[in-house]
Amino acid sequence: MIVTATTGAFFPVANYSPEFRESASGKLGGSIDAPRVDNYKKCSICSLQIKANSQASPHVNGSNVCLKHDHRLNIDPFGQGKLMQDGFVFRQSFSIRSYEIGADRAASIETMMNLLQETSLNHAKSVGLMGDGFGSTPEMSKRNLIWVVAKMQVLVDRYPTWGDVVQIDTWIAASGKNGMRRDWLVRDSNTRDILMRASSLWVMMNEETRKLSKIPGQVKTEIEVNFVDLPRVLDWDSKKLPKLDEITADYTRTGLTPKWSDLDVNQHVNNVKYIGWILESAPMQELEGYELVGMTLEYRRECRRDSVLQSLTSVLQNAVGNLANSSNVECQHLLRLESGEDVVKGWTEWRPRFANREQ
Amino acid sequence: MIVTATTGAFFPVANYSPEFRESASGKLGGSIDAPRVDNYKKCSICSLQIKANSQASPHVNGSNVCLKHDHRLNIDPFGQGKLMQDGFVFRQSFSIRSYEIGADRAASIETMMNLLQETSLNHAKSVGLMGDGFGSTPEMSKRNLIWVVAKMQVLVDRYPTWGDVVQIDTWIAASGKNGMRRDWLVRDSNTRDILMRASSLWVMMNEETRKLSKIPGQVKTEIEVNFVDLPRVLDWDSKKLPKLDEITADYTRTGLTPKWSDLDVNQHVNNVKYIGWILESAPMQELEGYELVGMTLEYRRECRRDSVLQSLTSVLQNAVGNLANSSNVECQHLLRLESGEDVVKGWTEWRPRFANREQ
Repeated sequence: MIVTATTGAFFPVANYSPEFRESASGKLGGSIDAPRVDNYKKCSICSLQIKANSQASPHVNGSNVCLKHDHRLNIDPFGQGKLMQDGFVFRQSFSIRSYEIGADRAASIETMMNLLQETSLNHAKSVGLMGDGFGSTPEMSKRNLIWVVAKMQVLVDRYPTWGDVVQIDTWIAASGKNGMRRDWLVRDSNTRDILMRASSLWVMMNEETRKLSKIPGQVKTEIEVNFVDLPRVLDWDSKKLPKLDEITADYTRTGLTPKWSDLDVNQHVNNVKYIGWILESAPMQELEGYELVGMTLEYRRECRRDSVLQSLTSVLQNAVGNLANSSNVECQHLLRLESGEDVVKGWTEWRPRFANREQ
Repeated sequence: MIVTATTGAFFPVANYSPEFRESASGKLGGSIDAPRVDNYKKCSICSLQIKANSQASPHVNGSNVCLKHDHRLNIDPFGQGKLMQDGFVFRQSFSIRSYEIGADRAASIETMMNLLQETSLNHAKSVGLMGDGFGSTPEMSKRNLIWVVAKMQVLVDRYPTWGDVVQIDTWIAASGKNGMRRDWLVRDSNTRDILMRASSLWVMMNEETRKLSKIPGQVKTEIEVNFVDLPRVLDWDSKKLPKLDEITADYTRTGLTPKWSDLDVNQHVNNVKYIGWILESAPMQELEGYELVGMTLEYRRECRRDSVLQSLTSVLQNAVGNLANSSNVECQHLLRLESGEDVVKGWTEWRPRFANREQ
C-alpha cells in the first residue's frame, strides 16, 4: 500500500465535498485511533504496551519486547529495513551522505523527506503490497486506483549531519473511512534521541479520471491488516491563515519549471521537489541564521512536466527584515500554477540556529 | 586527501601555464603509472597481482587474495565502506534509493556522481587524511591548500535501478608531478558486472589567492603512501572540439542560478550540480529514447552563490531533430558565466535506450 510521494503529489481537496474531506481525515485535530487495549501485550523488559500477535498480519517474529528493547531486531545488515512489532512497524536505518548536507553541514529538509519516502516504499514492499514498481496494491491496480498525499506535517528537533546514522520507524493507520495516515519517527541511532516526527494523510484517486475515490471494500481488506492503532506522533496543525496572493506576499518567485530529473516514474513531479520550490521564495538570506523546525503542507493539485509555477511567501511573525531577534519565525507559503490554481499551501516555522543546543 | 567535489569545483587551467598543466596531467592519453612489479604479490586463488604489504600504508589486513576473491572483505555491516588491498583500495556499497531514480526508473547520472563523491570522502576519512570537515590534509591546511577537480571522465555501461546494491572501489595515484588521479570502478554487487568506470584529475589550489599550486614536499610525503599504481580504469578522452558559443550552439539555456540548497559547506556550488545544468540545455525531449553513456568534463572556473550561468549544447553527430536512428549521439557542452568566462567544457555520448540489453 502507501505508494507515497511518487505516484501522485496532489490532492484537490478544495474541489471535493466537505463530507469526503471529513471521511478521509477523521475528526481533524483529535486522535481518531484510540488504542484497542485488548490487542496489546506488554514488553517483558519495560512493560510498555506492544501490539499482540495476530494471524491476519505478516509476521516476522513474535517478539515479546518493545522497539526500544529489541536490540536483536536492530541489526539490518543489508540496509533494506525490516518489519518489527509483529510486522506492524517498519524500521530502516540510513547513513547521511556527504552530498545530502547543505552549507550548514546539516542534512537538508529535502533529504529527510526523501528518506521518509524511501522508508514508506520499502515498508510497502516488505508487507507484500507493492504492485507494479511504484504502483498500488493488487486490488487497487485492478481498479486504477493510486494513493495521493493530501497533507504532510513535520516537526524537527535536530538535523543529522554527514556520517550520522538515523533510524526511521514508520507505520500506517486508518484515518476516517476513506483515508490512511502514515507516521514516521526519526531517531539518532547512536543517542536514540528523537530527531524528527512526521505524519501524513493519504487518499485514493482514480488514475484515469483524476477524481478521488472511496476505499473499496476489497482494497480495505487488503490493507487494513497492516493498520496499527498507535497514537499519532503529532496532532494535525490546522491553522487559519490569511489569504496569500501576489499582493499580500512578501516574496514571490515566478517561472519555476520542473527539470527533467524532477520527474518520477509516473512522469509526475515528486512531492518532495515542491519543498525546494517553496523554499525558493523564502527569504533565505534573512533566514540564514535560522533552521526549519516545522512544516505543514496541503497538496491541492498535481504538477507535470510542462507546468509553470509561482512560489509566494509571507512572513507571519517578526517584521520582514527584522529577523535578528531570537524568537521563532513563521512563514506562510503558496505554490500555484501561473494560471492561478493552487498546487500546495503551507506554512513553516524557523528557529534561530543553535537555539536547541543552548538548552 | 582528495577533498573532491565539494571544496571547490573548478580548475582555471586555461589561465595557467602549459608547463603546469603538463606537470599535473602527465602525458595526456597515455598510462603514466606503470605498475612497479616489485611491490606486488599474487592472489593465492587466481594469481592476479595485488599490491604487497607496506609499512608506510594504513593496513586493515594483510589479505593474500585479490578483490574478487576476498569475500570476507565484502561484508560491510555499517555501510561506511572499508579499506582493502592492503589499504590501497577503498570499497563502499550503496543501495539505490527510490528518490535517486528518474522517470526511466534508472539511477540518474547525478546520483552516480554523488556516490563517487561519497566514496572518495569516506576513503579520505579512512586513511586518516581528512582535515577539518570537508577540508584538506593537515599539511595542506597549514598552507591553505585545497584540492580542486580539473577533469572528470565517466563511462557507463548500465545504470542501476531502485533497490540494486552497487559496490564502488576507488583509489588514488600520482598524475605527473603536481596532480592526483582518482579512479572509481562501480559494480553490481549481485552480478559483479561492471556498471561504470570513472577517472578524475585533481590539482592543488591556494584557498586565499585562488591560484594553483605545486604540491609541497611535506604534503607529498603525507599523501603518496596512499598512492597505488594500478593502471587507470580508462584513458583520458581528449577530443579537439569546435568552438561552442551562442551562434554555434543548437540549444541554449540562460539565467541559471544556484539554489540555496546547491551550495556546499564551502559556500561553493558542488561540481555534481553542474551536470544538472549541462543537461538543462541538452535536447532532453529528443534524447528521451537515449541514455547517457559517456561524459567528459573539464572544470575551468568556480561558481558561487551569485553566479548567473548559461548552458550551451550542440549536437555533434546525427542531425538535430533526427535522433530517431539507432546510432549513438554525441553532444558538446559549455557552461559559462553570463559575463562570458567558461566554467565547464565537456561532451557527452548517448546510446539508444535498451541497446545494451539486446547484446
